[in-house]
Amino acid sequence: MVILGVDPGLERIGYGLVRTEGSRLEVLRHGLILSPRINLPDRLAFIHREFRTLLSETNPDSLATERLLFAANKTTAFQVAKALGVILMVAGEQGLPWAEYSPPEVKQAVVGNGSADKKQVQFMVRKLLSLQEDPKPDDVADALAIAITHALRSRITSLGTKR
Amino acid sequence: MVILGVDPGLERIGYGLVRTEGSRLEVLRHGLILSPRINLPDRLAFIHREFRTLLSETNPDSLATERLLFAANKTTAFQVAKALGVILMVAGEQGLPWAEYSPPEVKQAVVGNGSADKKQVQFMVRKLLSLQEDPKPDDVADALAIAITHALRSRITSLGTKR
Repeated sequence: MVILGVDPGLERIGYGLVRTEGSRLEVLRHGLILSPRINLPDRLAFIHREFRTLLSETNPDSLATERLLFAANKTTAFQVAKALGVILMVAGEQGLPWAEYSPPEVKQAVVGNGSADKKQVQFMVRKLLSLQEDPKPDDVADALAIAITHALRSRITSLGTKR
Repeated sequence: MVILGVDPGLERIGYGLVRTEGSRLEVLRHGLILSPRINLPDRLAFIHREFRTLLSETNPDSLATERLLFAANKTTAFQVAKALGVILMVAGEQGLPWAEYSPPEVKQAVVGNGSADKKQVQFMVRKLLSLQEDPKPDDVADALAIAITHALRSRITSLGTKR
């Protein structure tokens, strides 16, 4: 199974493509979609094009995104939600299964501690994916952690199903 | 000029199409886009299709939407923002000029009082658009009020430019 993990944003969208085979996890690709500082409708149209291109190039089996929690900056949170709306719409149009996980769920799945700090998450992402270096920047590390969370959760679910 | 006013939502999107000619305002069409209770990505894809169809049928010169303010229900506010993201993306793809107005700005423009109540707004919408009855439901009345706001604001701007 190939999972696309996405850390949504208006300005920066982190993504990480992870393949699972048995208990093995492997990174296929990771990166950032950076949108130019143009007016909002044009920016969302840009994200639409870029995200569709990413899906057609990578052809994942499922999409996992970070659940939005209320940030200190409310305006930013709304802008992120608008961009996420476009991303989820594309998933809907392509029939791509989707799951979302809150930051504590990701930390719990990856580190085993729902209040782990960023460094611990990065360390475990690096270890689980057998990377030579810590994944960077933060948006990409978060996207990979979300993809890993979905991989681990899906494994538990499919084991459960087999019983 | 033909203005499409939109009151965004995930479940219900109110819209009103208003034509301005000199100081005259006329409703061309109004209605609701109601999305089925399916999973979120499919629902956003539904909104995408319906909104594109609405634009191709009505061919407006500009789009005006309600600015999101923080509601009591935060989850609802995020869902509305996701739907609005899809709507604005379509506007961006079609090169449609866009403006947004907060509820107090709409009340100020339509009633002349930024803290007017819903009934006063409906009364003035009916009067300004020469309607036989109060516009209903609320989502449609709000969408028409947003279109009127944009019409009145654009008039002021263009008068200002002539000087």
